[in-house]
Amino acid sequence: MTTKITFLPDGKSAEVAGGTSVVDASIQAGVHLIAPCNGKGTCGKCGVQFQEGAPAPCAADARFYGGSEIDDGWRLACMHRVDERAVVFAAPSTLGKVDFGPSMEGIVLRPNVRKVWVPIGALRGESFTWPEVGRHARGALDEPPTLGLLAQLPALRYAPDMELTVVVCGGRAVAIEEGDTRLENYGLALDIGTTTVAASLLDLNTGEEIARGSGLNRQSVHGSDVMSRLTSLGEDRNLLAVLQRLAVETVGELLERMLAQSGVRRDRIYEVTVCGNSCMHHVFLGLDPASLAFAPYDALVLGPVEARAGDLGLDLPADTAVYALPNVASFIGGDALAAALAVGLHRSDAVRCLVDIGTNGEILVGSRERIVACSTPAGPAFEGASISSGMIASQGAIHRVEIGDDITVDTIGGEKPKGITGSGLIDLCAELRRVGLIDARGKYVSPARLTLQPALAARMLEAEKQFLVARSYGKNIYLTQRDVRELQLAKGVIFAGIEALRIAMGIEREEIAELYLAGTFGSYLSIRSARRIGLVPSLPEGRIRAVGNAAMVGAQMCLLSLDARAEAEALARRIEHVELPTRSDFQDLFMEAMQFPDEEPETF
Amino acid sequence: MTTKITFLPDGKSAEVAGGTSVVDASIQAGVHLIAPCNGKGTCGKCGVQFQEGAPAPCAADARFYGGSEIDDGWRLACMHRVDERAVVFAAPSTLGKVDFGPSMEGIVLRPNVRKVWVPIGALRGESFTWPEVGRHARGALDEPPTLGLLAQLPALRYAPDMELTVVVCGGRAVAIEEGDTRLENYGLALDIGTTTVAASLLDLNTGEEIARGSGLNRQSVHGSDVMSRLTSLGEDRNLLAVLQRLAVETVGELLERMLAQSGVRRDRIYEVTVCGNSCMHHVFLGLDPASLAFAPYDALVLGPVEARAGDLGLDLPADTAVYALPNVASFIGGDALAAALAVGLHRSDAVRCLVDIGTNGEILVGSRERIVACSTPAGPAFEGASISSGMIASQGAIHRVEIGDDITVDTIGGEKPKGITGSGLIDLCAELRRVGLIDARGKYVSPARLTLQPALAARMLEAEKQFLVARSYGKNIYLTQRDVRELQLAKGVIFAGIEALRIAMGIEREEIAELYLAGTFGSYLSIRSARRIGLVPSLPEGRIRAVGNAAMVGAQMCLLSLDARAEAEALARRIEHVELPTRSDFQDLFMEAMQFPDEEPETF
Repeated sequence: MTTKITFLPDGKSAEVAGGTSVVDASIQAGVHLIAPCNGKGTCGKCGVQFQEGAPAPCAADARFYGGSEIDDGWRLACMHRVDERAVVFAAPSTLGKVDFGPSMEGIVLRPNVRKVWVPIGALRGESFTWPEVGRHARGALDEPPTLGLLAQLPALRYAPDMELTVVVCGGRAVAIEEGDTRLENYGLALDIGTTTVAASLLDLNTGEEIARGSGLNRQSVHGSDVMSRLTSLGEDRNLLAVLQRLAVETVGELLERMLAQSGVRRDRIYEVTVCGNSCMHHVFLGLDPASLAFAPYDALVLGPVEARAGDLGLDLPADTAVYALPNVASFIGGDALAAALAVGLHRSDAVRCLVDIGTNGEILVGSRERIVACSTPAGPAFEGASISSGMIASQGAIHRVEIGDDITVDTIGGEKPKGITGSGLIDLCAELRRVGLIDARGKYVSPARLTLQPALAARMLEAEKQFLVARSYGKNIYLTQRDVRELQLAKGVIFAGIEALRIAMGIEREEIAELYLAGTFGSYLSIRSARRIGLVPSLPEGRIRAVGNAAMVGAQMCLLSLDARAEAEALARRIEHVELPTRSDFQDLFMEAMQFPDEEPETF
Repeated sequence: MTTKITFLPDGKSAEVAGGTSVVDASIQAGVHLIAPCNGKGTCGKCGVQFQEGAPAPCAADARFYGGSEIDDGWRLACMHRVDERAVVFAAPSTLGKVDFGPSMEGIVLRPNVRKVWVPIGALRGESFTWPEVGRHARGALDEPPTLGLLAQLPALRYAPDMELTVVVCGGRAVAIEEGDTRLENYGLALDIGTTTVAASLLDLNTGEEIARGSGLNRQSVHGSDVMSRLTSLGEDRNLLAVLQRLAVETVGELLERMLAQSGVRRDRIYEVTVCGNSCMHHVFLGLDPASLAFAPYDALVLGPVEARAGDLGLDLPADTAVYALPNVASFIGGDALAAALAVGLHRSDAVRCLVDIGTNGEILVGSRERIVACSTPAGPAFEGASISSGMIASQGAIHRVEIGDDITVDTIGGEKPKGITGSGLIDLCAELRRVGLIDARGKYVSPARLTLQPALAARMLEAEKQFLVARSYGKNIYLTQRDVRELQLAKGVIFAGIEALRIAMGIEREEIAELYLAGTFGSYLSIRSARRIGLVPSLPEGRIRAVGNAAMVGAQMCLLSLDARAEAEALARRIEHVELPTRSDFQDLFMEAMQFPDEEPETF
């Protein structure tokens, strides 16, 4: 005889043989409850709430739960077997590890937000008071509820099948909702880049990404890089509020789109985590970044900052918690920290290298022993902003290029090309170099001096010093000699930064066990092209990995797990900042790194 | 040879013989440092900061302080002797117990607010950042600073002899101030009564009361008692905001006066503690008290509530912390709890009784074993509100009455009488009863039936059924037959409440070791008169004590000590609420208690 057991919140179920343990049934259903004491009933970590088919309580249950909790269906999963049809709510903390993006080790879901259900029939009376509701909201009573929650109570009116859900954030009951809204528990992770803002809407019960979006930071109208925005700010102090609002509006637009796409209610988002470079971090929080612009170039704050959505003007309920990841140093922001957290640099036995390419390129080299980091002013070339036909990675952007008899381009979404994005630019230059149209110093070579197919040769317009990449709506897409120069500067400074850190660590190139290339160009990046243009050292291909927007993954981890948050804070204090301009050898490294490698690089 | 040592923050100093220990010198100066390990240098509790004349550090200092703290002058007081002129800052936590009002045991100063000094010369550079300032603000880095603090930083500009002070509230750095402002550290304790609002401005460094004030709750225009205000509220929901604002305005006016009187800056007040009956508590916090007005008469919240001044519209910096003491039960408010905390009912070996007389009379009987409590609707007679010539205890109020050949009255401030207050009313009725002008049932007796001096006899205006107490500006002050009835109702319900609790505890009258009479009439109350009118049982005179506004003392304790706050929260959960109307014997007790005792009561 088989019996059906369903696990909430994700609704996964299994038909199991009668007598199967609840923990085994959870594995069959693909839910994976945690049972650290291995079924002895001693650790209390596998607590679940039976909503149907609760078995008779046993002695072990009584050790962990009071009478009213027993009545509410709380049991230790490891102590019971499935004998009749059952529906079980497994709280996030009882669920196992989530396999999560590029993170080297999974994280255990332990969000700052919990939802506590007050079941049908628990409540009596016409109106509701906190002593009554809170009594049923197990674990929600550690700290006083907010005034906001208390003000919500009088509006509730009793109905026969009434259920309530209490939202607990940071140990404090912050809101009360009608119905069983436990399944609606969302958070927002943000990566505020100088050029690109990325946002991700996560289900805090499952760790799943519900929607994602990215867009151009509206601050770009005030200068494409951090320094030019700081300069504008120096001239007009009122600009801080303007820049802050522009960043918030950028997020607001992404959020709007994600909510529409996912059907998630705005007021079911309870926490926001945010990372960014120090300047974007300051501006997003409404803090003056002026101290970053002048010697000694200090950040106003390095540690984590906690705020509320209302303080920032974010279009979410005013009390929504906002957690800004710490910055490591003035020019090693929370985004680089988040990326390091995501790839688990600090857990690695071997020395690994992380290159996070945004408008600044942050580079970290290290292992669990020691991590050094630097920031390089790569500029926005890889986000398209300083390239004549450049654009950020969105619909219609050329993100992949191959040259055979002629050029072939792929665009995001398969649309007609609108411009060229970071990964496309890297491919394009790599291919032009391969066929000889660019020389080792980055200069365009006349097709007359090469043996090329006529179609390809015709694309090089020598008079205008530009190469026709694609024909598009009205405006064709070219790569100019100046664009090539921009790429050389950007890739050169990054390569030189990697070399400087390698030297600071006192290791040889081949001792880098792995190199992670992170950035908003995400999975589009061709490692082969990146090596060919000399963006990264010529490690064997398998030891270079494109990990996408790793900073966003770190921000997501901090949203899903307080442990990850604590880990990030500890990591921020450990990373050693190496200031490049003070290293006499950096200029030499940089001059060298601007060149294109002569040919397909040899690997050792 | 003698040497001078000065202790900050209170500036007390002593001339001591060279070689005197710092702890002994503190006793001579009247400062009383705590040294729990008795001079062994092992507990680290006596840490002080030398601002001048720091002795060379010893090994014990190095166990408790890091190098930068040693450089900043931190030393263990018990390990050093005074050899040269010295100035020492003794942090509140290193100071001894404060002897505090009616509290049976002193409290140790441990306020939620600390100020951390960043000394002259510690800071470099033109502008200031949190990593730099926070590094010098020892202990201020446990939690992230507030956005408010971070926003203050960029406005600071370096000056050669610059000092800063960081304000830490609840473990979080909340503000930064120019100069050494450690001596300016204030808090506000509030007792929001239905009729009277009392406020006290305390120095959080010393526990000293800097100013005090009380005034009529402006809500009184919407009904003199809680029930009538709840009824008004039931008819017009918008009234909640109006009532809330009126309470806040009452506080604002008192605060204004106290600031003017003391010269304290408004922005040097960092925390507010507030107690009140449940209804006033709810309204002050902007919470709907409707659930208190209808069966089952539940409070919206019983536990402590934490808010910010800005949430309430209090005229203090928006982030100023507000801590509302918990309520015990719907009609046993935080004021009764605070009074119980102040008199230390829960620490008493013997059974004691506390009667807190406001517009409601809260009564508590108990000891460390068990405490029972009830609330009696005494009405505002003792605050003057239902008495024809009644007034609250303020300038010109008659607070003491004696009858000899004629009547003699004392007024608060010695001014010409304006009205009569609670203690005056009790005296007056006691004296009228003594000379026979009031009989045992509270009826006026014709002077013709008594042997009285003509001057006294002439005061009884039989036709109008009133007694002329005093002549005043234009309007004379009378006690009417109706006023006597109001007093009888008020004192009867209180006496009956005491009896009901005594019976609930199963003890005899003489087993009450002590009875505390608390209320806003404060020290003016004549115990003799209170016994004579039968407000309280006829215990021997020494076992009845008037303890003034004990609720205010409890609110002050919670402001000065987090330990007291924790004690109050634990106490709130322990007190058992006895509901009077459900006790069949209460009506009998009440009818009996309305009578005036026949004569000067015998004591057993």
